[in-house]
Amino acid sequence: CCFEEVAYLLINGELPNEKQLEIYQAELAKNRDLPQSLKAVLEYIPQNAHPMDVMRTAVSFLGNIEPETKENDQFEITTRLLGMLPAALIYWWHYVNQGKRIECTSQAKTVAEHFLTLLHGKKPSDLYQKMMDVSLILYAEHEFNASTFAARVTVATLSDFYSGIVSAIGTLRGPLHGGANEAAMELIEKFTNADDATSGIKKMLAEKQKIMGFGHRVYNECDPRNVVIKKWSKKLADDLGDSKLYDISEAIEKVMWDEKKLFPNLDFYSASAYHYAGIATSLFTPIFVISRTAGWAAHIMEQRKNNRLIRPSANYIGPEARFFVPISLR
Amino acid sequence: CCFEEVAYLLINGELPNEKQLEIYQAELAKNRDLPQSLKAVLEYIPQNAHPMDVMRTAVSFLGNIEPETKENDQFEITTRLLGMLPAALIYWWHYVNQGKRIECTSQAKTVAEHFLTLLHGKKPSDLYQKMMDVSLILYAEHEFNASTFAARVTVATLSDFYSGIVSAIGTLRGPLHGGANEAAMELIEKFTNADDATSGIKKMLAEKQKIMGFGHRVYNECDPRNVVIKKWSKKLADDLGDSKLYDISEAIEKVMWDEKKLFPNLDFYSASAYHYAGIATSLFTPIFVISRTAGWAAHIMEQRKNNRLIRPSANYIGPEARFFVPISLR
Repeated sequence: CCFEEVAYLLINGELPNEKQLEIYQAELAKNRDLPQSLKAVLEYIPQNAHPMDVMRTAVSFLGNIEPETKENDQFEITTRLLGMLPAALIYWWHYVNQGKRIECTSQAKTVAEHFLTLLHGKKPSDLYQKMMDVSLILYAEHEFNASTFAARVTVATLSDFYSGIVSAIGTLRGPLHGGANEAAMELIEKFTNADDATSGIKKMLAEKQKIMGFGHRVYNECDPRNVVIKKWSKKLADDLGDSKLYDISEAIEKVMWDEKKLFPNLDFYSASAYHYAGIATSLFTPIFVISRTAGWAAHIMEQRKNNRLIRPSANYIGPEARFFVPISLR
Repeated sequence: CCFEEVAYLLINGELPNEKQLEIYQAELAKNRDLPQSLKAVLEYIPQNAHPMDVMRTAVSFLGNIEPETKENDQFEITTRLLGMLPAALIYWWHYVNQGKRIECTSQAKTVAEHFLTLLHGKKPSDLYQKMMDVSLILYAEHEFNASTFAARVTVATLSDFYSGIVSAIGTLRGPLHGGANEAAMELIEKFTNADDATSGIKKMLAEKQKIMGFGHRVYNECDPRNVVIKKWSKKLADDLGDSKLYDISEAIEKVMWDEKKLFPNLDFYSASAYHYAGIATSLFTPIFVISRTAGWAAHIMEQRKNNRLIRPSANYIGPEARFFVPISLR
């Protein structure tokens, strides 16, 4: 199935039939364009900005001009965000890198096709569309991860929908969460071939350096999502006749299993798959945002259905109470 | 003591001496002006936007143009935010309400004086400065409230400082948290005098309506901060010779105690105090942001010192596993 079916399932609790999917995809397509004021704001963000900061700012700004109301409710906003997020990222990307103001709409049927169309300025082939679509599905939802939890903490004060998504984006940004796919790419790119990677990773392990893209809080033996994306990384490597990154990735995987019994998670082979699709490394985590917005939205809706303030208590272990000393005596 | 002493204590662990305070206040003053691009972005935010969305967007945008780096570290950014937040809010406020581009700097010595100077376009009297300063102290820090926790969840993925503050602002926005002072004002303004308030609140209680500004998660019998701000509300009422809002507030306090044994929290008398100082209701929670940024910053720094990912696990209680049905069969 396609990403839109999964997003529909997350929001509505059931997979759509053909008619429902067609309507949903058309709705998403109608929401692709950006308001003129958001384009202007994006143009003020410099080239060296982190694309995740761009996403965070774009959603935060949109909350000012299309605020949540009874009419523009959480369902409308979810559709709006899933529609406009690719353009929010790629409009800025082409503007700062090529000084080009791109058209934010496209004839693409799916989010995956739309994303690649805006990025590369042409319709992607079926193979690359499908990889992208599969990747969006794999990233769409993953229970109580840190960004999802942040979104719930935020809306649990009865704050608005945008604030929840903005918190989630800022939280996903960190290398211990979504930022791991970028960190994995930086690791893989360091090596020139599989042998180099094998010895390099052994050396890093000996130096107790952290290897990104391995292990996962909720899985013990393997990340089932990795099996899927790894196959797609291989398919694109074969299509391009360029297996270097794939071979290096496999070499790293082998060392990590042999030495540490650690398995690659979804982020690890996503790196090479995205790279083969011509996607710059700094756009990896923003793609995660586009997909996970479906999961975040579902969690925000669930939190609101049976809300309680999320506010832990703390055991104070700092200095003992001190008497106030007036400034003239300090 | 003054707000800057408290902010210094939160960030550095000790109160400053006279020399240190002077240097710190001068540093804050140097950070008051806004970058031209941020002013331009603020001008794109419409008049009907929620000022908390303006604050959230301003901080998020600033993260793009003055990102966190080794040189621009968490201490620098905290000083920057405490310096520029009043202007971020009030530049926008005067622009959308009066079409006026204000000067973002002032000769004011303190954050309190600077805030009121920008808002009213003139140096405030000592009485109003002092009320503002006391209010900033009272709001500066309050352990693991929801916004502080959101900031910690965000930076625990090793995300950047701005993302932590942005999550906190979005979380504070909700009426179950910072938004309570605005909600308290709306309640108080409904009544024409103390008797009207007494009967009105009894009626609301009988209808099981929620009364904002009462009770608190960490206090059982009273909110010690309320004692302080209540006195200041009275002082301003006396100064203005206008005790209406104060009398109404006291009448509500009495009914809530007699009928529910609930005490007013800090938010409740902050409402009338701010109102007496000529501050529009929608600016109440943004003032909370200006002050609490000191506390949020201290928590972010503490979280980073001994970081662990904050990621709860969940017990799934949804539908049982379902077989995938291809779309043509749905």
